[in-house]
Amino acid sequence: MTKRLAILGSTGSIGTQTLDIVAHAPEIFTVEAISGGYNSSLLIEQANRFRPKLVSVAEKHIADEIRSQVPTGTKVLYGDEGLHEVAASTDAELLVTALVGSQGLKPTLAAIEAGKHIGLANKETLVSAGHIVTEAAKRKGVSLLPIDSEHSAIFQCLNGESVKEVSKITLTASGGSFRDKSRAELAGVTVEQALQHPNWSMGSKITIDSATMVNKGLEVIEAHWLFGLDYTQIDVLVHPESVIHSYLEFVDNSVIAQLGNPDMRVPIQYALTYPNRYATPTKRLDLAAIGKLHFREMDFERYPCLRMAYESGKQGGTATTVFNAANEVAVARFLRGEITFLQIEQVIEETLAQHDNTQNPQLEVIYEQDAWARKIAAAMQF
Amino acid sequence: MTKRLAILGSTGSIGTQTLDIVAHAPEIFTVEAISGGYNSSLLIEQANRFRPKLVSVAEKHIADEIRSQVPTGTKVLYGDEGLHEVAASTDAELLVTALVGSQGLKPTLAAIEAGKHIGLANKETLVSAGHIVTEAAKRKGVSLLPIDSEHSAIFQCLNGESVKEVSKITLTASGGSFRDKSRAELAGVTVEQALQHPNWSMGSKITIDSATMVNKGLEVIEAHWLFGLDYTQIDVLVHPESVIHSYLEFVDNSVIAQLGNPDMRVPIQYALTYPNRYATPTKRLDLAAIGKLHFREMDFERYPCLRMAYESGKQGGTATTVFNAANEVAVARFLRGEITFLQIEQVIEETLAQHDNTQNPQLEVIYEQDAWARKIAAAMQF
Repeated sequence: MTKRLAILGSTGSIGTQTLDIVAHAPEIFTVEAISGGYNSSLLIEQANRFRPKLVSVAEKHIADEIRSQVPTGTKVLYGDEGLHEVAASTDAELLVTALVGSQGLKPTLAAIEAGKHIGLANKETLVSAGHIVTEAAKRKGVSLLPIDSEHSAIFQCLNGESVKEVSKITLTASGGSFRDKSRAELAGVTVEQALQHPNWSMGSKITIDSATMVNKGLEVIEAHWLFGLDYTQIDVLVHPESVIHSYLEFVDNSVIAQLGNPDMRVPIQYALTYPNRYATPTKRLDLAAIGKLHFREMDFERYPCLRMAYESGKQGGTATTVFNAANEVAVARFLRGEITFLQIEQVIEETLAQHDNTQNPQLEVIYEQDAWARKIAAAMQF
Repeated sequence: MTKRLAILGSTGSIGTQTLDIVAHAPEIFTVEAISGGYNSSLLIEQANRFRPKLVSVAEKHIADEIRSQVPTGTKVLYGDEGLHEVAASTDAELLVTALVGSQGLKPTLAAIEAGKHIGLANKETLVSAGHIVTEAAKRKGVSLLPIDSEHSAIFQCLNGESVKEVSKITLTASGGSFRDKSRAELAGVTVEQALQHPNWSMGSKITIDSATMVNKGLEVIEAHWLFGLDYTQIDVLVHPESVIHSYLEFVDNSVIAQLGNPDMRVPIQYALTYPNRYATPTKRLDLAAIGKLHFREMDFERYPCLRMAYESGKQGGTATTVFNAANEVAVARFLRGEITFLQIEQVIEETLAQHDNTQNPQLEVIYEQDAWARKIAAAMQF
């Protein structure tokens, strides 16, 4: 019996690694549908190799370009409709949501309503609409299986345990590309420097988010929703080696941690095969060869974005939507060279300051506030 | 509903810590029976505080001495019969076997036959007669709940997982009191130096066993029986801080570890309350305050006793019984000043060399070989 998968974002970092897992275990997985953006050559290659029934791309002209080059019988769609079809209309049992940013929300909700389990690599989904997504998943009886290494770690550590007996979880943070720089030194950093992550090979948005610690902030908010924990129960610890991916602490003071080399294919595969485990094409962890692991407290003054993430999370309502939307725009502006690295946090802070919070928002309010935040963040001048 | 306990070895290190757990959670536990050796004042105190129905001591004259000082209605017994009654004759649901050495075997088997779950702190039980004890536990449907911190760590990490998906487990070793000494420097070490364990506060036998690495060897053999793993699946890693108590590695290369401060009360309580967890009177682990964890490969030339433990384990039969019995005698002789520290390993090696292995031995053969090994080890001259 194979497991039928659909993948949103098949050409990105998580998407290609997911397909690498599939390629190593064709007896376990089939690919029903994939969606990508503009990388037509890679999409054509993936379509021919994995033979999905459906491929979706960003725009019509890409769809027209690739249609003749995918296998006969493979349907090619594009845009929002294409995302929706990939997410919800196939025979897939599990949808991997590896889209970047808040565009993942709508198709994820559609997949949940269609009864599909979710392999969740798009953290903005829970950050923007955690209360709606978790309620829908519960109502439809589908699992939200974390793919992020930190959440997968907590999920694995919780296996067989009761979350009621958890006193605290700790997400580890490598510190990102600028972990050895002071705040003063951050003023002049370039886009190229920011894109050098010390441990993980990831997309550019998440690499910048790691440098600002926004990524860890999004993870804290995501953990709040995934595991039903209060923000006071979620800690962040700096651990430069990223070997302990995260850990949890029980009421008896016993700590269970998940460790491994920094290779996303382990948490990806675990989400796909849970509750079973199979061999992965990854390297074994060798603690003797690593020799030392280091830990130090998180510095919330050095990383104000993480402080803002906790504050937004504790405020609830639309605050986390706005935090996330402002950051997405700020990162895009930084990558385009419009603003400096430190102005990313200014954009977020200023947008949050102008925001009027709505508690327990409906989806329309979330979209509205998301759009409002993007407008403010895009127009902000320095 | 309280859990009814009996404790073999209530005046030792594990026994007193078990009673400390009980004292902190009297709403969870009652003590049905305790056994101790010669420490009559502590036994009297424990009997009056925890009001067991039965107390057993080493010899008749101790029993006669304490009888008038324990609560009315508390029965006082002694010797082998006393151990048997504490283990098997009360209403206890769970027996903590915290006796030192191979004397734990008979009463543990009696308790299993009486349908009691076992909180196993006496590793010699499985080392001497693993095939008999695990078969009896399986047949009677009782749990062998490990109390040793390493085995408790593996047991906790296995929660909710399948042992079939485990590729390897790694027991961590602090390195013992002489971890910073070369083999040459070990020649002149004293009993007092050997008794200074860097991390754990334990009894003298186990502290010496930590310095020789016999203790880790016994743990490897115990892990083989407890978890049904092949010796090639059991590794040992030097980890001076003893913060990672042990870990396991799955076929997907994901590693799950259990961590904590070195405080036996966490694994003891977990064995008593499994599968639930309650607060313990222990300190939280603070990785940021610890700052660094170190790991290095085990050196089997530096620690030949560990090599002999693996060899005995792989040979099976009565080899592990003889390994353990020879070591017990050698440690006693070292503590009495009869032999040097390095002669402990010579006693074990020489006794094993003279031993004629019997595969799949019955209990009588085990006792016979145990007695034979003790005689050889006791008589060995240098």
